[in-house]
Amino acid sequence: MSTEGRKVSSSVINAGKSALNEDQACCQVLRVKRRSTGTHSPSRRRRSSLPNGDGLSLKDDTDTSSEELPFHYWALFDGHAGSGVAVMASHLLHHHIALHLQEVMDILVTPGLVPPTCLGEEPVNQHLGPAQKGLSRAVSLRGAAGAPGSPHAPTARFFSEKKVSHQSLVVGAIENAFKDMDFQIEREKSVYNISGGCTALVVVYLLGNLYVGNAGDSRAIIIRSGEVIPVSSEFTPESERQRLQFLAYMQPHLLGNEFTHLEFPRRIQRREVGKRMLYRDFTMSGWAYKTIDDDDLKFPLIYGEGKKARVLATIGVTRGLGDHHLKVHDSNIFIKPFLSCCPEVQVYPLSQTEHGADDVLVLGTDGLWDVLSNQEVAEAVSGFLGNCDPDDQHRYTMAAQDLVMKARGVLKDRGWRISDDRLGSGDDISVYIIPLMYGNKQN
Amino acid sequence: MSTEGRKVSSSVINAGKSALNEDQACCQVLRVKRRSTGTHSPSRRRRSSLPNGDGLSLKDDTDTSSEELPFHYWALFDGHAGSGVAVMASHLLHHHIALHLQEVMDILVTPGLVPPTCLGEEPVNQHLGPAQKGLSRAVSLRGAAGAPGSPHAPTARFFSEKKVSHQSLVVGAIENAFKDMDFQIEREKSVYNISGGCTALVVVYLLGNLYVGNAGDSRAIIIRSGEVIPVSSEFTPESERQRLQFLAYMQPHLLGNEFTHLEFPRRIQRREVGKRMLYRDFTMSGWAYKTIDDDDLKFPLIYGEGKKARVLATIGVTRGLGDHHLKVHDSNIFIKPFLSCCPEVQVYPLSQTEHGADDVLVLGTDGLWDVLSNQEVAEAVSGFLGNCDPDDQHRYTMAAQDLVMKARGVLKDRGWRISDDRLGSGDDISVYIIPLMYGNKQN
Repeated sequence: MSTEGRKVSSSVINAGKSALNEDQACCQVLRVKRRSTGTHSPSRRRRSSLPNGDGLSLKDDTDTSSEELPFHYWALFDGHAGSGVAVMASHLLHHHIALHLQEVMDILVTPGLVPPTCLGEEPVNQHLGPAQKGLSRAVSLRGAAGAPGSPHAPTARFFSEKKVSHQSLVVGAIENAFKDMDFQIEREKSVYNISGGCTALVVVYLLGNLYVGNAGDSRAIIIRSGEVIPVSSEFTPESERQRLQFLAYMQPHLLGNEFTHLEFPRRIQRREVGKRMLYRDFTMSGWAYKTIDDDDLKFPLIYGEGKKARVLATIGVTRGLGDHHLKVHDSNIFIKPFLSCCPEVQVYPLSQTEHGADDVLVLGTDGLWDVLSNQEVAEAVSGFLGNCDPDDQHRYTMAAQDLVMKARGVLKDRGWRISDDRLGSGDDISVYIIPLMYGNKQN
Repeated sequence: MSTEGRKVSSSVINAGKSALNEDQACCQVLRVKRRSTGTHSPSRRRRSSLPNGDGLSLKDDTDTSSEELPFHYWALFDGHAGSGVAVMASHLLHHHIALHLQEVMDILVTPGLVPPTCLGEEPVNQHLGPAQKGLSRAVSLRGAAGAPGSPHAPTARFFSEKKVSHQSLVVGAIENAFKDMDFQIEREKSVYNISGGCTALVVVYLLGNLYVGNAGDSRAIIIRSGEVIPVSSEFTPESERQRLQFLAYMQPHLLGNEFTHLEFPRRIQRREVGKRMLYRDFTMSGWAYKTIDDDDLKFPLIYGEGKKARVLATIGVTRGLGDHHLKVHDSNIFIKPFLSCCPEVQVYPLSQTEHGADDVLVLGTDGLWDVLSNQEVAEAVSGFLGNCDPDDQHRYTMAAQDLVMKARGVLKDRGWRISDDRLGSGDDISVYIIPLMYGNKQN
């Protein structure tokens, strides 16, 4: 990785829907410093120390020392209903990540150290073999340790201790940083006017691994030797249908007596009460027929297909930051309980593979992926980079610009058109193209 | 498929833990007949007509007519805390599946017919193009149809109609059959003494497709040209941790003030209150540190690792049938709310691929997979079948017996041992090996 990663993004504003770009981006090299106290204060509460962007004990310059843990950071934020939350998240989310990494920094910089279950204590039974582990609270079914007739007699309960990897500490740090970011947005929304909400796609490069955290419908893929490796998945009303239906089934008051947690292929009409109609419940991925009753006349919690699918007839993305005040149009039903601010974090072990000059990580907001498939993006990027002078410092930036132009298309009589005369993206489009070969050097 | 599928299973009882085999199996060729009424009664309630195994309008013989829809059925049930529920499910689950298929039979036997949203009505807008679809309830975010500035003006709400495939009707039929089976078990448990619970792994071969439904920790794999294709996933405290924690977080009364929905690597001791310890919440796949409070001294909802992981310190499998009366040892906390009776159904398009004589579907209870990997099973089965006379009618049965013996091992000084002197399975072991080449004939 080099600072070249800082100049490889490109973006266009949507086709006239709004004056300002609701996509925001951030790219930083950060250095986590040890906390000055040196000891862990057990009563410290994370949320009493919200970051304000002033850096806290973090530094953005190039000063290095063994007391520091550097990481690279790229992020895309796709705002909706205003750019306020996207702008705020682009300024602050990396500080939340750094704060969480700070707590586990001593562990991360010590290769081979098993994270202690309790900070400030010696690990218990660190080299315990699996056969000695046991569970002793109760007689348990299915013949495991502790059950009558099982091969292992119960052992003391504190002998069973799960091993946690360094990677999962970084994953946990990113996950909780998103939660803290969302909590800070909620707090400051009560004081300031911060508009809307946003999706967030972040990449952290730390100690040889790429961590890709995604909350929303942006997407990251790796292109390696021309092959596509997806490193994120999207969170939409369709992909999260069962989670949302399950929540609504368990907390029906969230539907405000206006919506039903069941899915139907279309709205039900009153004259259809009593007939057998197709439906899906939260337990089902298939469809079946049920007899329609009055409750089924309510609007479905999840409705529509593909890009038009909506939660509570309002929002087309189910994870992200902000949206705390968002309500269903003309009602008092809040959307936020159905939105998760928690990312899915995937880990790509960058330093374990040798990468060439054309191997890249592509981050894009949905404006890109709505009109170009993974394969089309891979072909466009590989084709473009292959035609560049390998020594050109700007080839990744130019490839990103080329990709954005391909997704936007050109203005013709019948609107913006891309290849094969398909419609171009009318959305904001933002792209990072990040070269992976700098990971080879283990820097 | 032929009746050869009926003679390809093998099973052994666990190493002395119980006198009776808690594994049960079922293998049938069933024929769904049209309902005699010919019309769909909208007020009919499924649960007023529970199957009793007498066949209803189903037939198990070989009489055929165009009024019938035949399907092949294999199932494995791994019982725990008694064999009662496993025996009952092995006798009745296929009748529930047949009942649900009966309702959609007219659709399934008509290739190309889009399932009508409402039974007994003409499909609405059957050939509607995607560009005409719209959503009109409310102003929606993210620029879809109906939002200001979107390219498509809102259209009448009933024009938006999701297309449902024939396959998803079969998936829905299997899913709801499991639910009805579990409801029948609950009802009859209130009258009869039906012991325990069971996992269920079923395969339905219908109209060229294999449907593999799994609720529990059994497993199905396809071996094709020696390669492994997994066609099921397991449901255990570890694989379903986040669903279970989410449920407990939303309905904390289910934990009876004795358990916490948070996961810790080990039990917390009272003297550790106030310290920072590793934990995972339902939103996290990574780990982080939190300050321990009194609530964290409760026993974790999910506890233990691998085969020893338990829900509520009691059960090591999180989907299946029965267990309605199961409680945490020495408490009034019910386990059932955390167990799902709903299978995950995967579809394998059997007739779209040509299969050879050594291409098979392997079904096994966890007694098999605990000691042999997918790859080891594939090598054992392919090796065995390759050494058989291709005309031997019993080669699949013998391969199943061979596989069970490999997983059980032989009795040595230090217990049952398999290859490399590893411990054999102390559990019940049941295996089906089902040849796939009969799917080539489209019968």
